[in-house]
Amino acid sequence: MDGLHTLTVQEAARAVASRQVSARELVAALVDRIRKLEPSVQAWARLRPEQALEEAARLDDRLSRGERAGLLHGVPVGVKDIVYTAGVETSAGSRILSGFVPTYDATVVARLRAAGAVVLGKTVTTQFAFLDPGPTRNPWNLEHTPGGSSSGSAAAVACGMVPAAIGTQTVGSILRPAAYCGVVGLKPTYGRVSRHGVLPLAWTLDHPGPLARTVEDAALLLEVMAGPDGLDPACSPQPVERWTEACRLGASGLRVGVPDRFFSERASPPVREAYGRALVALEAAGAEVREVRLPAEFDQVPWPQRTILAAEAAAFHSRWYAQRANDYAPKLRALVEEGLQLRATDYIRARQLRRRCRQAMLSVFHQVDVLATPATPAPAPHGLDSTGDPAFNGPFTFVGFPSVAVPVELSEGGLPVGVQLVAAPFAEGTLLRAAAALEAAASWGRRVAEPKAKARAR
Amino acid sequence: MDGLHTLTVQEAARAVASRQVSARELVAALVDRIRKLEPSVQAWARLRPEQALEEAARLDDRLSRGERAGLLHGVPVGVKDIVYTAGVETSAGSRILSGFVPTYDATVVARLRAAGAVVLGKTVTTQFAFLDPGPTRNPWNLEHTPGGSSSGSAAAVACGMVPAAIGTQTVGSILRPAAYCGVVGLKPTYGRVSRHGVLPLAWTLDHPGPLARTVEDAALLLEVMAGPDGLDPACSPQPVERWTEACRLGASGLRVGVPDRFFSERASPPVREAYGRALVALEAAGAEVREVRLPAEFDQVPWPQRTILAAEAAAFHSRWYAQRANDYAPKLRALVEEGLQLRATDYIRARQLRRRCRQAMLSVFHQVDVLATPATPAPAPHGLDSTGDPAFNGPFTFVGFPSVAVPVELSEGGLPVGVQLVAAPFAEGTLLRAAAALEAAASWGRRVAEPKAKARAR
Repeated sequence: MDGLHTLTVQEAARAVASRQVSARELVAALVDRIRKLEPSVQAWARLRPEQALEEAARLDDRLSRGERAGLLHGVPVGVKDIVYTAGVETSAGSRILSGFVPTYDATVVARLRAAGAVVLGKTVTTQFAFLDPGPTRNPWNLEHTPGGSSSGSAAAVACGMVPAAIGTQTVGSILRPAAYCGVVGLKPTYGRVSRHGVLPLAWTLDHPGPLARTVEDAALLLEVMAGPDGLDPACSPQPVERWTEACRLGASGLRVGVPDRFFSERASPPVREAYGRALVALEAAGAEVREVRLPAEFDQVPWPQRTILAAEAAAFHSRWYAQRANDYAPKLRALVEEGLQLRATDYIRARQLRRRCRQAMLSVFHQVDVLATPATPAPAPHGLDSTGDPAFNGPFTFVGFPSVAVPVELSEGGLPVGVQLVAAPFAEGTLLRAAAALEAAASWGRRVAEPKAKARAR
Repeated sequence: MDGLHTLTVQEAARAVASRQVSARELVAALVDRIRKLEPSVQAWARLRPEQALEEAARLDDRLSRGERAGLLHGVPVGVKDIVYTAGVETSAGSRILSGFVPTYDATVVARLRAAGAVVLGKTVTTQFAFLDPGPTRNPWNLEHTPGGSSSGSAAAVACGMVPAAIGTQTVGSILRPAAYCGVVGLKPTYGRVSRHGVLPLAWTLDHPGPLARTVEDAALLLEVMAGPDGLDPACSPQPVERWTEACRLGASGLRVGVPDRFFSERASPPVREAYGRALVALEAAGAEVREVRLPAEFDQVPWPQRTILAAEAAAFHSRWYAQRANDYAPKLRALVEEGLQLRATDYIRARQLRRRCRQAMLSVFHQVDVLATPATPAPAPHGLDSTGDPAFNGPFTFVGFPSVAVPVELSEGGLPVGVQLVAAPFAEGTLLRAAAALEAAASWGRRVAEPKAKARAR
């Protein structure tokens, strides 16, 4: 079978299940693709090709005996390097955890594996999932950032190294790199997916979620990853739903809200125009697009967001930081320093403000089913010194509402542009229905990036 | 009908429902009792006899038309003065809130009223429910403290001014005054009872609960007060149970755990002996009493408890405090000062430690149904400068487990001694079953304090 690297998760799972291709062949094809592109893209912190091939061979054996592990039998995936993988180093892009090998899988990894997924390796994260970039480049243009912090996951999925990968988002770390790299990035509702075995950046803000090349793929991964987990105290008892089915319901009658301010004002012209065309396409597909007013509380997000982020990051890092401050990259270092100075009463007030923001922003969803905004202010910026601007994603992460980035166009500069959709807490069904409708209406198609074989030295 | 002030909640409710006595007569009898004893006991911050008599008359009218409001039709109650009462001043024993009249009832008050209870007035609280004493005296000996912070609620119930009252506990503010005053004090599981309309001391530690003269009365009040409330974000969706029925199940087969350390070591001889006799009586009634080992985490409670208390109290009071520090009593002032200095990372670490303590202490309840400890280290101390020592109640409040104080004996000095029972979260059924069995076994009976008519000047 040719072009195995272009298969979606669903196609790959079907191809393996129907024995059109073996899991081992699929893994081998992707390992080849990675060997070819990795020198220029640098999406991987760590690869495990031999073990992945062995696991794939075992899955092929099981299938020949009529045993299918689950929905992802034989599907290769990448896992962000802040997520624990038993027996595989997990260093979070840091010197602090260099050589650290977890003895157990994070709940999300255990669930993917139980469903038959094969972990090809660990994808590059910014240091401890904050803003200091790793080596990864944008596969659409190697001179541009892939975004962060789930840099490797987004880049690897974009250029067909894997059909899907796990990321995490604390401010804009799934949706921003997804939009910059032209893939679908899904941040579920806070508490929908367990964080057991995921290194925290700020645990009342951290959300794991999938990156994939189609909305249905992201929905399928969520079906596997989500659901109650007693090992994460914030994990919700809400049951898993058939989100892949929700993806097929179409746009007819969906009420899509366009915020009256903030986003359009801050979006660059190419993004604003692509966003406008996406709304028109969505309307043509049967959605009802209307302007909605953002509550005043929306503007209050930055202070409590930064305060909670800094305080929790400082609490997590304080011991290591006390001994090895020099091993911290500058942006994380500044965040920890800031967090160490914060007063308890500031943190408490920030949490109270968050509750108020959440209440106020909930009211928007009395009028519409989803909000649509540009996913980022601009396409991926030039240079690798910054991971870009998460300003459009942060407010919805802050309140824990589910959001998704869907690629809609390739800009004139050859870089993808994405649209962000947001829904009410635990309304992933509605969110993914809208996202699939947008995907179909925008006809981004099934683009896979083809980066040049080797970038010039940085 | 004579001796109306000695009726329990259940007896009063039955007497009114069966028209042996009218609600108005009952209220009038208790108002007389209060007029006689209040100069010496000083349990009330505010009385509303006329309005209570009018409400009672209206309840009598309704009953004559065959309408019974609910389980507490015509039963007079007291409400701690940090709990909002629509149209009735709620000043929390402070100058800061002097003259403040809420426009709505706290959820617990609304539920009591909907069930037919008549609020006689607001009972004395220490200032903002911390440690600075109010004027209330112990009705068993006016030279001794009634305990705090629910001082007035405990004293009023103990001397028959009301059959029941509402209190709140953040460390030991229901069980300690209940034990000192010889009444039953119940602190439900954290989240079991709404705090909407209850002034916070430290909202992740605050628990409203009833004080009454029998365990079944406390159970009945809990049935009315408990249950989901969207207006308190921490209020649990757990449904109300028939706790009064649980009280009738007896001790047979109940596994009662006696902690291996901490309590007996710190208890004074009269308390230790009374506690020992209570355990023997409980065993004779069919319970299985065994020693249980407290986890090491039990000893770690004081630091995170104080840290969370100080930080949250400071966050709540900071604005008033910035302008009116001199209106704060010394102990609360010191707490707020301490809380204002705390780091965000300390508060976060304290919350993490609390989660660990909770997990560790939960394991105790794999071996036993309830824990039994003395309710206080000693009977009510002499003097009114302190509200006594909450050390025996604090650890269980900290982790949010339900606990109850049951009076078991009158010590040689004429002051009550109580036993504290503790159960796993949301196991109020088991807790109240054990408490009722202990009450029956210990035969404290239905003592009502008869304080001297007037104390000498303080």
